[in-house]
Amino acid sequence: MLADTPISRFLDELASSSPAPGGGSAAALSGAAGAALTSMVCRLTIGKKKYAGVEEEMKELLEKSEDLRSMFTRMIDRDAHAFNKVMEAYGLPKETDDQNALRSAAIQEATKEAALVPLELMKHVIDAFALARTVAEKGNARSISDAGVSALMLHAACESAALNVEINLGGIHDSNFVEWKREEIASLRKTSAKNLGEVLEIVREKIEAA
Amino acid sequence: MLADTPISRFLDELASSSPAPGGGSAAALSGAAGAALTSMVCRLTIGKKKYAGVEEEMKELLEKSEDLRSMFTRMIDRDAHAFNKVMEAYGLPKETDDQNALRSAAIQEATKEAALVPLELMKHVIDAFALARTVAEKGNARSISDAGVSALMLHAACESAALNVEINLGGIHDSNFVEWKREEIASLRKTSAKNLGEVLEIVREKIEAA
Repeated sequence: MLADTPISRFLDELASSSPAPGGGSAAALSGAAGAALTSMVCRLTIGKKKYAGVEEEMKELLEKSEDLRSMFTRMIDRDAHAFNKVMEAYGLPKETDDQNALRSAAIQEATKEAALVPLELMKHVIDAFALARTVAEKGNARSISDAGVSALMLHAACESAALNVEINLGGIHDSNFVEWKREEIASLRKTSAKNLGEVLEIVREKIEAA
Repeated sequence: MLADTPISRFLDELASSSPAPGGGSAAALSGAAGAALTSMVCRLTIGKKKYAGVEEEMKELLEKSEDLRSMFTRMIDRDAHAFNKVMEAYGLPKETDDQNALRSAAIQEATKEAALVPLELMKHVIDAFALARTVAEKGNARSISDAGVSALMLHAACESAALNVEINLGGIHDSNFVEWKREEIASLRKTSAKNLGEVLEIVREKIEAA
């Protein structure tokens, strides 16, 4: 599992000429770091007298953000795996018509899956933003920059995943699927940008007031 | 060293109630991932017949991006270390006037250093953007989404580092220092946003043309 790899070795693999792990795994790591920072602000809020009023809410948020963090962490591997499946499909024999048809179907199926993994990541980012926003609003103000970095990491994950969906859509022949997914991407990107802007507004206000 | 920690354990520490590693280390990790992806595109370009014309340029870029990657990776620890120094200064005795004066000076010095580390990171991001742009323009077009993710990770690193500089500036009494650094941040943020926009324009054009 890539998540068990030391950071420096993961970065070596990212930088290597092996195409996976690539940008999709980096997107998932960024999402995981974003969720982790939301969890950190929750934990730095829970148990503080000044924030007793939001204690229960922070405990609930923490549980959700830790679930999302696990999901993002698993996606570091899932993305690399989906990419490798596409490469395997391209490697299938293509000497007879039957082989060609099978290979072509396998490429289409694997490419759809390689588009769906980062698309799923984008959806999780939107869920994670709801948590990041609440910790920015109500969490420990001393950790406000961490709430801001959480939002920045989530948005980078979403935009990075979008590029990975788009590049895979370019290889898919099913035009209904492609059009439908393009609309989803556009809507998710818009929501992510809106969320980022709103969270950063809260964050900068609190930093200036500090 | 945090860079020797498995990813999942680093994320556990990020999510823990210990304030370091926090957003500053996440920013450095994002920078390292950005530089790693630029290196990956260089490596996927070098040795390809189609890109023989840019072979030497890619080799030079690769050397620079690997240097930047090392620098960013070291900053994962440097940021956590700088933060811990601030905490240590706050923990100094404050019973006598002399102790108070020493403590206050130590806090100021440590807080300046905690602002300067992410500011340095922002400057490295701008250097890394020059490389990311060239790989987007001239590198292997099949890795174009990775060049885009590289730029997204770099910009997230820059914006995240900016929040960490700003929150530290709030605690610094030397108003000349603060004003000077605020101007630097504003200029670096602007340059980063401009770079991101330009790289993504190249990337989206190539994805659409593919």
